[in-house]
Amino acid sequence: MQSIEFYREEFLSHLEKNIIQKEPTNLYQPITYILNLGGKRLRPVLTLLTADLLNGNYKDALDAAMAVEVFHNFSLIHDDIMDDAPLRRGKITVHEKWDVNTGILSGDAMLIQAYQLFENYEPQVFKELLKVFSQTAIEVCEGQQYDVDFETRDDVTIPEYLKMIAYKTAVLVAAAMKMGAIVAKASIENQVLIYEFGKNLGIAFQLQDDYLDAFGDPKTFGKQVGGDIIENKKTFLYLKSLEKGTKEQQKQLLDLFSIQPKDAASKIEAIKTIFTESGAVSAAKIEIEKYTNKAFNALNNIQATEVQKKVLIAFGQDLMNRNV
Amino acid sequence: MQSIEFYREEFLSHLEKNIIQKEPTNLYQPITYILNLGGKRLRPVLTLLTADLLNGNYKDALDAAMAVEVFHNFSLIHDDIMDDAPLRRGKITVHEKWDVNTGILSGDAMLIQAYQLFENYEPQVFKELLKVFSQTAIEVCEGQQYDVDFETRDDVTIPEYLKMIAYKTAVLVAAAMKMGAIVAKASIENQVLIYEFGKNLGIAFQLQDDYLDAFGDPKTFGKQVGGDIIENKKTFLYLKSLEKGTKEQQKQLLDLFSIQPKDAASKIEAIKTIFTESGAVSAAKIEIEKYTNKAFNALNNIQATEVQKKVLIAFGQDLMNRNV
Repeated sequence: MQSIEFYREEFLSHLEKNIIQKEPTNLYQPITYILNLGGKRLRPVLTLLTADLLNGNYKDALDAAMAVEVFHNFSLIHDDIMDDAPLRRGKITVHEKWDVNTGILSGDAMLIQAYQLFENYEPQVFKELLKVFSQTAIEVCEGQQYDVDFETRDDVTIPEYLKMIAYKTAVLVAAAMKMGAIVAKASIENQVLIYEFGKNLGIAFQLQDDYLDAFGDPKTFGKQVGGDIIENKKTFLYLKSLEKGTKEQQKQLLDLFSIQPKDAASKIEAIKTIFTESGAVSAAKIEIEKYTNKAFNALNNIQATEVQKKVLIAFGQDLMNRNV
Repeated sequence: MQSIEFYREEFLSHLEKNIIQKEPTNLYQPITYILNLGGKRLRPVLTLLTADLLNGNYKDALDAAMAVEVFHNFSLIHDDIMDDAPLRRGKITVHEKWDVNTGILSGDAMLIQAYQLFENYEPQVFKELLKVFSQTAIEVCEGQQYDVDFETRDDVTIPEYLKMIAYKTAVLVAAAMKMGAIVAKASIENQVLIYEFGKNLGIAFQLQDDYLDAFGDPKTFGKQVGGDIIENKKTFLYLKSLEKGTKEQQKQLLDLFSIQPKDAASKIEAIKTIFTESGAVSAAKIEIEKYTNKAFNALNNIQATEVQKKVLIAFGQDLMNRNV
């Protein structure tokens, strides 16, 4: 096992070698552009790390890691069109730099390229990888659709919300790790456990993101604190406040979520008070801990040496402490 | 070997059984909608027919045929968004009936579903099918990009145009047939020949489409005759007229292609005269015959009985006579 930084460097050098520059330029340039926008490369790093953890060789997992990263960036291009987002990682989005049609078509090509990246694997492994990949890709689409649907629904339940965040973000983290396990020819049991680790850690991370979006430190959070509240997003804190709050808190919250004042500061403060006093914040903290524990329990049951697991434990802790 | 109608019926009954109705409804309903819009189902029929032709069983090719049809319809949804098309097969397009975001996301899901449809094949066949499928899918994207690029270019060459129509339409016909051959475990030689048959017949068909768009009988052509001229599309006839025409014809053609008169009839007539007098029409007829002959030569070299080939020969002739 190596350090996270080592895997990241190895992945970045593989990425650089494998970016395709070809004709037609208008199709392939946007792909190069988004793949070079940076980011933490968490998913491919987890693919490589898992291959080593389960007694494989991370080098054999480089193509699978690349497929995961290409897929992730495909979904970013199409999501940014759907959300009409001007910026991604602080840079202009593909559909803004080129146009919507380019974003659609280059995104489509990336999804296909992601599949092609598995073609170096022998047929049995190839098929196992692709089944996980397709299942996950469909779930990511379903998660995105639920997210869109929730915007116009007023009866979203907490289980529905948890399913949405699991599909939209956690399953790809889980699949990235499972693919590392498949390449390492790990036992089915270890494949299932590493998937559970990734999925539950992904859900915990997303719930924490909901919490930090309202209560995080503007200096370290990275995104605009209060952003979800300004956009009237139905996060865990919102849904839980409606569930646990008093009639008065519910009414106040619904009223505040129906307005978009120019100066958002007082709205943000009022809503944060409701989140806390309704008990939603405590509930969120319990839920984050529950999913984090689930993740670490799965990791605990994996057949690997404690020394090997240490990197992943440290990674999980760093991730939840937002140090990665 | 059975009749085209037999394979179409078998495919339609398989399609009906395999249309997925599930949650989230807003993701899956548009998929059901477009798959039920009808059409001739030429590509999947060719997959089934080829499996039988090369001593396989069409029943084993049903999933591959379905994948081809799902992919084709995915590309229609995304193309219709890019072309801002209101109608498809006489019915309202997905992005008009729902919205652009739905069209993007349901299309993405269809592309993934197309890959999943191969999962019943054993690993070796699965991988062979997927390599053809991905290669073709990327070419279809490239073809679409070239088509978009050509709109704003004034230096498109005939070879570039032929590559564009090959990628945009012919390679999927070719791949549909090659997949039938792979399922039938046909020799590599037969796989290559059936691909050549499909590709060249596809190019011939598309060139004929260019010709009929200007000179076809409005009663039988199915589309608006003169449609390409009204849209100033750079078809084979246009490019060839610029290549072979006199200076005067070239100038007149460029002038006519820079205007969009309300009454298109006289523009259409003037352009048809240039197409004929420049020699572009004769050149198109020669080219159509060349590709048709290439197709039938490939078919001729395939190791199969003459009785079996008869259905495909009749199909090719019917297609070029626009009777299918």
